[in-house]
Amino acid sequence: MMKYGIVAFPSKKLQDLANSYRKRYDPHYSLIPPHLTLKNPVEATDEEIRQIAEKLAKTSEQHEPFTLRAYKISSFQPVNNVIYMKVDNTPELLTLHNALHTEEFGGAPEFSFVPHITIAQKLSDDEHSDVYESLRMAGVNHEETIDRFHLLYQLENGSWTVYETFRLGKESQ
Amino acid sequence: MMKYGIVAFPSKKLQDLANSYRKRYDPHYSLIPPHLTLKNPVEATDEEIRQIAEKLAKTSEQHEPFTLRAYKISSFQPVNNVIYMKVDNTPELLTLHNALHTEEFGGAPEFSFVPHITIAQKLSDDEHSDVYESLRMAGVNHEETIDRFHLLYQLENGSWTVYETFRLGKESQ
Repeated sequence: MMKYGIVAFPSKKLQDLANSYRKRYDPHYSLIPPHLTLKNPVEATDEEIRQIAEKLAKTSEQHEPFTLRAYKISSFQPVNNVIYMKVDNTPELLTLHNALHTEEFGGAPEFSFVPHITIAQKLSDDEHSDVYESLRMAGVNHEETIDRFHLLYQLENGSWTVYETFRLGKESQ
Repeated sequence: MMKYGIVAFPSKKLQDLANSYRKRYDPHYSLIPPHLTLKNPVEATDEEIRQIAEKLAKTSEQHEPFTLRAYKISSFQPVNNVIYMKVDNTPELLTLHNALHTEEFGGAPEFSFVPHITIAQKLSDDEHSDVYESLRMAGVNHEETIDRFHLLYQLENGSWTVYETFRLGKESQ
């Protein structure tokens, strides 16, 4: 068994910006590049991952590239101390998210979808207040097109390896 | 401009083994998962990477999955202090490597191809001697099929993000 997840990596430009914060404020900094999670980690066997990949190839063909617009810094407080770039929940993104949570992919998600790119987590309450205040002031205003997503699995050390990339849209096939 | 490279990631099992050594002996541990380099880093623009990806899609179709056999621990000393799992240089692997170094991909490689998975580097000479002795005793004997490779680019912090995955062989298309 291993854990797999599905993410989109934004452009190098947005990843570099996110990493400039993560380096100081996110202990997961070295485990995975900055990302927009499309499906939270789920347990699966080698064989199941192969089957999931086959299904994802079809799913990706049926969905078009979408606009990722990061427009403010927000926080999940008081649920947890995660600070993130809030990403516009467009119909295209929501539709893709839903398509990755049908019965064949294990069913509905545990939580409602709040598209985001994490830039700080596991801070103490005091740290969180300080960092959130300064990051919120810095803000973010970025827009780009996402034309692919990735299926990843987790290694024993907690880091993530890409298993496969899926391009969105029929033109790419 | 950014740097891109082409690698194959071995199975989780071999990555976990490699990481058990890299954690202690490789300062690049957190920058990239354990990998077999197929093409060393090269500078390219966004547009060039898109073109390279298109070409790689064709190249990957024209080559079949290959056997990765890691059969001993070796070192590049005295050239440098890199310790690695030596990977059998099969005709299939060599052919793929050559296909990634034709004129359309920037031409011949600077060095002859020694397929390997790095597990230790940047050690002092004394450390290198000690670590090499103990890893060589531990040895490695692993065989698996590699059916895909990945195009990656490097972020400002030195870490690598996967741009796209390419499956080897026509059946996968």
